Amino acid sequence: MSDLSLLSVVELSKLIHDGKISSEELVQSYISKIEKVDSKIQAWAYFDKEFLLKSAIESDQYRITGKPIGPLHGIPIAIKDIFGTDEMPTACGTPLREGVRSKNDCEVVNLLRNSGALVMGKTVTTEFAYFDPGKTTNPHDHTRTPGGSSSGSAAAVASFMAPVAIGSQTNGSVIRPASYCGVIGYKPTYGLISRHGVMKQSNFLDHVGIFSRSLEDLAFVAREIIKKDPEDKSTVAYSADDIMSIVKSKPPFDPKFVFFKTSKWKNLDKDSIKSFEAFIKKLGSNVEVIDAPSHFDKIFEYHQIIHEADMAYSFSDFYEKRKSKLGKKLVEAIERGLKYKARDYAEACENRNYFYDQFQEVFHDYHAILTPASTGVASKGLEYTGSPEFSTIWTYLGTPSISLPLLQGSNNLPLGVQVVGEKFDDPRLMRTANWLMKNFKKGK
Amino acid sequence: MSDLSLLSVVELSKLIHDGKISSEELVQSYISKIEKVDSKIQAWAYFDKEFLLKSAIESDQYRITGKPIGPLHGIPIAIKDIFGTDEMPTACGTPLREGVRSKNDCEVVNLLRNSGALVMGKTVTTEFAYFDPGKTTNPHDHTRTPGGSSSGSAAAVASFMAPVAIGSQTNGSVIRPASYCGVIGYKPTYGLISRHGVMKQSNFLDHVGIFSRSLEDLAFVAREIIKKDPEDKSTVAYSADDIMSIVKSKPPFDPKFVFFKTSKWKNLDKDSIKSFEAFIKKLGSNVEVIDAPSHFDKIFEYHQIIHEADMAYSFSDFYEKRKSKLGKKLVEAIERGLKYKARDYAEACENRNYFYDQFQEVFHDYHAILTPASTGVASKGLEYTGSPEFSTIWTYLGTPSISLPLLQGSNNLPLGVQVVGEKFDDPRLMRTANWLMKNFKKGK
Repeated sequence: MSDLSLLSVVELSKLIHDGKISSEELVQSYISKIEKVDSKIQAWAYFDKEFLLKSAIESDQYRITGKPIGPLHGIPIAIKDIFGTDEMPTACGTPLREGVRSKNDCEVVNLLRNSGALVMGKTVTTEFAYFDPGKTTNPHDHTRTPGGSSSGSAAAVASFMAPVAIGSQTNGSVIRPASYCGVIGYKPTYGLISRHGVMKQSNFLDHVGIFSRSLEDLAFVAREIIKKDPEDKSTVAYSADDIMSIVKSKPPFDPKFVFFKTSKWKNLDKDSIKSFEAFIKKLGSNVEVIDAPSHFDKIFEYHQIIHEADMAYSFSDFYEKRKSKLGKKLVEAIERGLKYKARDYAEACENRNYFYDQFQEVFHDYHAILTPASTGVASKGLEYTGSPEFSTIWTYLGTPSISLPLLQGSNNLPLGVQVVGEKFDDPRLMRTANWLMKNFKKGK
Repeated sequence: MSDLSLLSVVELSKLIHDGKISSEELVQSYISKIEKVDSKIQAWAYFDKEFLLKSAIESDQYRITGKPIGPLHGIPIAIKDIFGTDEMPTACGTPLREGVRSKNDCEVVNLLRNSGALVMGKTVTTEFAYFDPGKTTNPHDHTRTPGGSSSGSAAAVASFMAPVAIGSQTNGSVIRPASYCGVIGYKPTYGLISRHGVMKQSNFLDHVGIFSRSLEDLAFVAREIIKKDPEDKSTVAYSADDIMSIVKSKPPFDPKFVFFKTSKWKNLDKDSIKSFEAFIKKLGSNVEVIDAPSHFDKIFEYHQIIHEADMAYSFSDFYEKRKSKLGKKLVEAIERGLKYKARDYAEACENRNYFYDQFQEVFHDYHAILTPASTGVASKGLEYTGSPEFSTIWTYLGTPSISLPLLQGSNNLPLGVQVVGEKFDDPRLMRTANWLMKNFKKGK
């Protein structure tokens, strides 16, 4: 049989449901891949191949009884190591939590398991999902960062060690590593996916995300985990039942885009600017390039106040009792967070609606906003996981965004295009993204 | 014809729809009442009898064309003077806004007008709906406070100068004046009634409220203004269509109550304690008295941080440019608000869910929580509008609460019983309140 690890989730699901392959075979092919490539990539915080094989065999035994099975039956999924799991420890990238196990699976893992998926292992995160890096390298160049904080999830999917992976984003932790590693990264609308049982940085800003290699796979997994959860009050009732047929459908006409140059555009390196300019040219009359009004810069300030003040609260205990064991960047953020004023926090929260209303007008006339997914390709060294600045606005606003591996920057390294949609319009955003992938992939 | 001002809204609506009275006659009877009693009560910040008569006559002229009319057609409603109106100024109880008119009606007024109601006039509020008092006196004793901040609305309904009135609550500004003035006061679940176009103190805590003299009238008006409003992102889709039949129905069995003694119980005066003890005794086996766990005291701290930090933000401009024109209590609150830390504000916001979850367990076993609506009867003097402390918890949590004029305290002055329900269970809470009114009214 050909290398199963190269197939899509949609293909694998069909093969398993038709009894053409077993979960055991599938898992074996990932184990081979991991044994071959992971020594240089180091995507896993926790990986127990015996346990994974045992889970796959149990999954196969269940399947052959003929009982009903879910769409993800027998398919292993990589989980960022800040998502609580009862079978595996959740270390959150800090020695302070080494070996700590959750009593229960987080809701996302619970839903994935309910659909039949296997927890493949836990992927490397930066410390507490902030900036202090883990051990993972970029699969395209091991001397470069994979991005953060969902470093291992992005690298595992990029190197075919996992078919899809779960990550999270509070600033740019899905979109940026997806861009650097050359995979698809999805940050849903705020409120679509439960954060219950996931390490919390910020109630207002934390989002669960997904890494995949196709839009169909993304939709296939998203459909299983988009669900209102009474334990996460931010979640809303939302039907994602149609998401697969929407993502596969052809838009009635070519989607229209705004290419949005924020004040951060000047931070792009020359090669990246060249790539984006060529991409804009190829889009032709389907795109309009717009400079953001300068008062949108306020968003970066607002995001920082909420993010760092929330971290100061979420990590109170660690900071107060074990400060010396925390990374430098995290301590600095917490200490800035402790200084902000409540009045400014209130302002930062309230203005989300004001800014979102302004963006909504864009969505009256255009299908999606385009921006770079990162300031360029992955930089040299593992110390700095790169800048999230092209994600900040969308994380703050809670709009859905997807990083697409459409471009190449310097050294032929991957460079992501970010597509941003209207809140709660995630399925159509995926369709638009799919249209871009099909029509503008490298060389087309 | 008998004194129309004594009738209920439900009765008036029927009389107008049946063509038995005109809006003009109705408004005339209120004008007579106002001319008779208002010189001592001073409930109105703005009242123009000629304009009101003109509106009533227009309303009658429309009705006799035979076109469809709304449930509140031709009925005048008193509006607290922080609700924006285009026909009348909205002074918010401060000379800084004297004569200032809004370009548009606020959403509540818009919905009331849509239902046919007339804006009767604007009722006195404390300065910016905080503690610095207006001119209004208590209708039961003009040497006493009517409570605040919805002082004029409570006093107008209590003295039959208006059939119902709109107020607002950010701490205890509906429940407390209702208790002092001996009327029904209703603070809905957070998210049921739009605050768009209303002066803002706190996005997290501001609620629109209603004053009435019966639960049927309350439901009749609530039904018209409970509506999701895209301009107030806190509002949710909610159907209140059945509210009238629910409020009028008999509960299937006697409702069960928890009487909730918070740590504030000790602040009640002796006469009030006596009244409440007698009330509890009359409820017999339908009530269980419970002391709140002491960690619930944290709620008062959280409420204060959010409230005052939000005021510091909402009133930034006035504070920075016209501080010397602001009242002492308001300035003190803003200055405390400027000092709070963002980290503590984040904690205060997040813990709402934690505390509400604890209360939800109570609602599994009981229909409603009972507490005093105020620390006693209205106190002497107009300077101090009284303590909101028996409302703070419910405003913070966003649960619906209703003050019922069931008791008398010292000097035979009115004393309210507060009934608190589960979030979004407002219609059944009104039914429970109606059951209490019918079975436990003074002397019963």
